[in-house]
Amino acid sequence: MLVDPSVACVVGVDYGTLSGRAVVVRVADGAELGSAVHDYRHAVLTEALPGGTPLGHDWALQVPSDYVDVLKTAVPAALAAAGIDPAHVIGVGTDFTACTMVPTLADGTPLCELPEWEDRPHAYVKLWKHHAAQAQADRINELAAKRGEPWLPRYGGLISSEWEFAKGLQLLEEDPEAYAATARWVEAADWIVWQLTGSYVRNACTAGYKGILQDGQYPSASFLAELNPSFENFVADKLDQPIGQLGTSAGTLTAEAAAWTGLPEGIAVAVGNVDAHVTSAAAVALDPGQMVAIMGTSTCHVMNGDELRSVPGMCGVVDGGIVAGLWGYEAGQSGVGDIFGHYVDNLGGEWTHERLTDLAARQKPGEHGLIALDWHNGNRSVLVDVELSGLLIGETLATRPADIYRALIEATAFGTRKIVETFAAAGVPVREFIAAGGLLKNGLLMQIYADVLNMPLSVIGSEQGPALGSAIHAAAAAGAYPDVRTAAASMGRVERAVYQPDPAAVAIYDELYAEYSVLHDYFGRGANRVMRKLRAIQRKAAA
Amino acid sequence: MLVDPSVACVVGVDYGTLSGRAVVVRVADGAELGSAVHDYRHAVLTEALPGGTPLGHDWALQVPSDYVDVLKTAVPAALAAAGIDPAHVIGVGTDFTACTMVPTLADGTPLCELPEWEDRPHAYVKLWKHHAAQAQADRINELAAKRGEPWLPRYGGLISSEWEFAKGLQLLEEDPEAYAATARWVEAADWIVWQLTGSYVRNACTAGYKGILQDGQYPSASFLAELNPSFENFVADKLDQPIGQLGTSAGTLTAEAAAWTGLPEGIAVAVGNVDAHVTSAAAVALDPGQMVAIMGTSTCHVMNGDELRSVPGMCGVVDGGIVAGLWGYEAGQSGVGDIFGHYVDNLGGEWTHERLTDLAARQKPGEHGLIALDWHNGNRSVLVDVELSGLLIGETLATRPADIYRALIEATAFGTRKIVETFAAAGVPVREFIAAGGLLKNGLLMQIYADVLNMPLSVIGSEQGPALGSAIHAAAAAGAYPDVRTAAASMGRVERAVYQPDPAAVAIYDELYAEYSVLHDYFGRGANRVMRKLRAIQRKAAA
Repeated sequence: MLVDPSVACVVGVDYGTLSGRAVVVRVADGAELGSAVHDYRHAVLTEALPGGTPLGHDWALQVPSDYVDVLKTAVPAALAAAGIDPAHVIGVGTDFTACTMVPTLADGTPLCELPEWEDRPHAYVKLWKHHAAQAQADRINELAAKRGEPWLPRYGGLISSEWEFAKGLQLLEEDPEAYAATARWVEAADWIVWQLTGSYVRNACTAGYKGILQDGQYPSASFLAELNPSFENFVADKLDQPIGQLGTSAGTLTAEAAAWTGLPEGIAVAVGNVDAHVTSAAAVALDPGQMVAIMGTSTCHVMNGDELRSVPGMCGVVDGGIVAGLWGYEAGQSGVGDIFGHYVDNLGGEWTHERLTDLAARQKPGEHGLIALDWHNGNRSVLVDVELSGLLIGETLATRPADIYRALIEATAFGTRKIVETFAAAGVPVREFIAAGGLLKNGLLMQIYADVLNMPLSVIGSEQGPALGSAIHAAAAAGAYPDVRTAAASMGRVERAVYQPDPAAVAIYDELYAEYSVLHDYFGRGANRVMRKLRAIQRKAAA
Repeated sequence: MLVDPSVACVVGVDYGTLSGRAVVVRVADGAELGSAVHDYRHAVLTEALPGGTPLGHDWALQVPSDYVDVLKTAVPAALAAAGIDPAHVIGVGTDFTACTMVPTLADGTPLCELPEWEDRPHAYVKLWKHHAAQAQADRINELAAKRGEPWLPRYGGLISSEWEFAKGLQLLEEDPEAYAATARWVEAADWIVWQLTGSYVRNACTAGYKGILQDGQYPSASFLAELNPSFENFVADKLDQPIGQLGTSAGTLTAEAAAWTGLPEGIAVAVGNVDAHVTSAAAVALDPGQMVAIMGTSTCHVMNGDELRSVPGMCGVVDGGIVAGLWGYEAGQSGVGDIFGHYVDNLGGEWTHERLTDLAARQKPGEHGLIALDWHNGNRSVLVDVELSGLLIGETLATRPADIYRALIEATAFGTRKIVETFAAAGVPVREFIAAGGLLKNGLLMQIYADVLNMPLSVIGSEQGPALGSAIHAAAAAGAYPDVRTAAASMGRVERAVYQPDPAAVAIYDELYAEYSVLHDYFGRGANRVMRKLRAIQRKAAA
């Protein structure tokens, strides 16, 4: 069916940690016509499976049917909110948290949906923040360093416990039966596309960033066999799959998925993608040196570069990982909004983010006398160590909750500066910093970031950046634009230099950042391993 | 008047940080017959004077009439509660926080009670925890070290900003007029005795521990002149006064004070004393090696020794400072209960000490994965640095308030262990650890201290140790016993080895204490001066 270009729409669906959001976007200008959110019924499983089976320390699972429920509820609701004729929708695009892994049968059925597996933790989706595969990650890193594996520098020298191989090796070693029953070890980003199209296409983004696919090669069978003889054929048996380039079509919408969503059968479905990476398109930030920070529970930093460089502690650099023709760099902070949320949750009472922000905003930089390390959820960039933990220095009997809240915000800003400086030192300078994500709405936080970075902050012009980015990819996949960059130029939105650094604040934050850096290196680079020791003592006590 | 020994009573009055407590005690056996508490109307002034004049950072003042109100209200109430004939009271004894300093005219009238001085902060009482004289203390220490002053090692090598000379020098340098008008610079411990007897006797305890009186000499006029030429005659003009030995009579109760209190005119009034030091008598812990820890908002450790030794970071060693004939050692932790109280206050909501303790008690040692430094109110022993501040390491998104609460308790226990080990290393071994003070009622805390110290814990048999100790001193002063030790043997109370260390907990706490020690030295001994820098940045921001 031909759709009049002036009314043509696309749907972007953004799968976050706790909910999925659908947005209906006009192809011509990116106008967001309607959106809807669906909270996952099971949220994140950290204590027990739905049937009661307890989970270990640092586990974080999800239930895949929750993802399908987003298609069944949020997409029709967004269409209704947009008030458009669904026949005007020409494509759908999705993005997902990553690395989030689904063990499935050969036909894509999640293992946990089979009655005989429903009480087995390893049959469920391992969410990105499942951190129980650290032992496996440590071995992968040790062996890769020893063997001089060529892919290791592409990941800042360290593979995360969050990624496909560490989680897969944990599956093998802790539940060999579940491993044997897992015909496909699927990124959730690709699994949801599989549900929409009926066919399995592996996206170039997660295959590169999370699946260690570099220059067309995965880690070798000999490497895998040295990790564990039973892991030798992991790639060939469970992982390898045709790669789909970002912004191209993975297939067309099946009749079943059309019925779920209310969208026309047969429209284009974009290759799967990652929330952070699609946001670059939404923020029209695809040129080299434009760093987009998607700031929410955690922060992901994505930036294109002309050349391949080795950046210490980056999460990865992937050819075409954000957009075809450029090297896509990724870095991340594993706890940001989560840290503030945790602090507010523990306070309880009548404290809210709004009240704490209001009180914190009345302070001058440095006035609270505190400094914190933002490692409550470990450190992704630039230290890549999930065993690190939070630190707060300077508390006195005069310290008030808003002081700590502000110090935590500043700590995450210092963490971002550490990433920006590390990129610059590696020859990948950050020329513009564009903020996106849920924390945009906190103006104090944005100003602190501008002051700490001593850079103007641009902000994305959409409150639903990833969903808009997915919609842009859908438009490209549907052929409405020749490629993602062209689509982004018409459909994306950014406001330049909204927050300007204040020189007086910059000077004080320079002093505090110098102290942060000393603590960062002392606790993060091995001089004092107390954080690791505390985790070890904790595990021993819990055993 | 002769009183039948079987009904003879004494009254002890304990002046704490926020209230004064009177207790009526039977001389024969130390039975506590009645008590009453009076809260100071002005509590602690930290923000402004009663008339609104704002106070600087780290100030802590009090109003002396609040102390007299204790005599007028708590003493009569205690007598009423005891139901005794006031004529049976043969003596009264007092103890006070220290070093708490009152600027007075020659007749003892506090400067702040004169209308022309009521808006001058320096005319008020500087409470022990007034910490705004650090700059003066730093200069005193630097000059004393340079000149090799013989008294310096008697104070662990450092004079505190809390003490008589630092606070006096601050008075001189910040308000020379108030300094000039101050005829006497009086310990509150002696000022209250002055109110009771009409004459000014300086007690040997504070004169030694806080007034740097050693071997009969104060710091020399040449030393004082080198600090500040106008300070040369500070001792001769404002400080020097006949010394009264502990447990002797400072004089007899005046008619006016008899009218305030309802006590008989003419009874013995014991020489002034300090809350911690009198508690040793109440706990029957006057032998060398018996360390009494008075655990409340802060903790004071007092212990007698046979010999004079130099213990790093001790608050002081004074000949006869606790009891005649022995060297009295003092050490301290400047924040203990205050730290827990501050944490609970900041939590707000429905959190209480009881609920947090209950939850914390369900944990095994090490289970929370945290370690803290107990320096929220600075560090007295063994580092003697009020610029130090709190630290918490190990917080994750799974950390709950009871985890932090328990870690703070443990941190104070580690701080105590640091003191005990430092005494032992200096040749002053601690053979028994006797706990006293308000924190006694927290059984979890007591067990943690036993486990961290790996020592059985004895506990004082009274809930009002200082007041009982003051009563014991009153009995000695009245001549009912030949000396304090004899009086303590009859009137004091202790339960031996109430808390026994648990070997499994001891092993884990040994590991955690090793980490605490590394952090203690790193942040406390100059390797990383971030805590001082944060204070400096804070002061700059506030200016």
